[in-house]
Amino acid sequence: MAKGKILIISADGFEDIELLYPYYRLKELGYTVEIASKEKKDIVGKHGYSVRVDKTISEVNPEEYIALVLPGGRGPERIRIYEDTIRIVKHFFEKNKPVAAICHGPQILISAGVVKGRKLTSYIGIRDDVKAAGGLWEDKEVVVDGNLVTARVPPDIPAWMREFVKLLEKA
Amino acid sequence: MAKGKILIISADGFEDIELLYPYYRLKELGYTVEIASKEKKDIVGKHGYSVRVDKTISEVNPEEYIALVLPGGRGPERIRIYEDTIRIVKHFFEKNKPVAAICHGPQILISAGVVKGRKLTSYIGIRDDVKAAGGLWEDKEVVVDGNLVTARVPPDIPAWMREFVKLLEKA
Repeated sequence: MAKGKILIISADGFEDIELLYPYYRLKELGYTVEIASKEKKDIVGKHGYSVRVDKTISEVNPEEYIALVLPGGRGPERIRIYEDTIRIVKHFFEKNKPVAAICHGPQILISAGVVKGRKLTSYIGIRDDVKAAGGLWEDKEVVVDGNLVTARVPPDIPAWMREFVKLLEKA
Repeated sequence: MAKGKILIISADGFEDIELLYPYYRLKELGYTVEIASKEKKDIVGKHGYSVRVDKTISEVNPEEYIALVLPGGRGPERIRIYEDTIRIVKHFFEKNKPVAAICHGPQILISAGVVKGRKLTSYIGIRDDVKAAGGLWEDKEVVVDGNLVTARVPPDIPAWMREFVKLLEKA
């Protein structure tokens, strides 16, 4: 069961299923999954599911984690503004560790300056932001570009996690 | 991808994650997943997620499906009262096909008369109903007894689906 730790970064207003699905899915595989946010108190999704925050983003040492998940909803706008978020995200790209983002999750990637020249997708409402940041946006249920696995909306979740798990298990 | 069809039976008030997780998880594995309810209109979960109903319970021919999933929440009380629900559930037990139930899902198993002498778990609030119906209730995150895989609450989902997938993939 010692399969390594995976980090989820989010905040209040997350799209519930986009956080809960990978959270349970990666536990199902035997990974330890930790949730980080600005403060160490429960965060609540758009649909009312509450999840425990294990660490503040300032406490996170990204070296401890083998992969990163960025759910969507309104959480990304709340957490992308912090320097600690950027520091963490940059680590995963510098070390080429697997990163999964869905829906509004790529807003965090834009702030971290890691989308330029990368193929990715997102919720269509932020497509133009992804493009303006230099991302090569594609309208597909899942886009895999190296360490980065992105999807658009909840119905893409099966394809999104299928590809992310494939990447993780070969990493 | 022709891995067979799996049926989910539920109704308004379902516990969102207990329906959505297996729905996406089984699609991730390449199964076709269909949702049946009393009427052919979208059903809405406790937390507001809406899902499309593919078939009414009266239209369901259970021979077409290789497995059955019964999510919890308030859906089971609404759907357990119909003869078609009972007809469908009995088929899966008679044919020894995999059945997954969680939380209040076992209320449907009680109505179908299939819990007597079986080891299972459920949400603790219906424990005494399971026992009164002759079930051997256990307080564990997942209980596997032959074709039946049961769990108590959403945090049991990783263990619940891990065991259910194991059963399915060897069936």
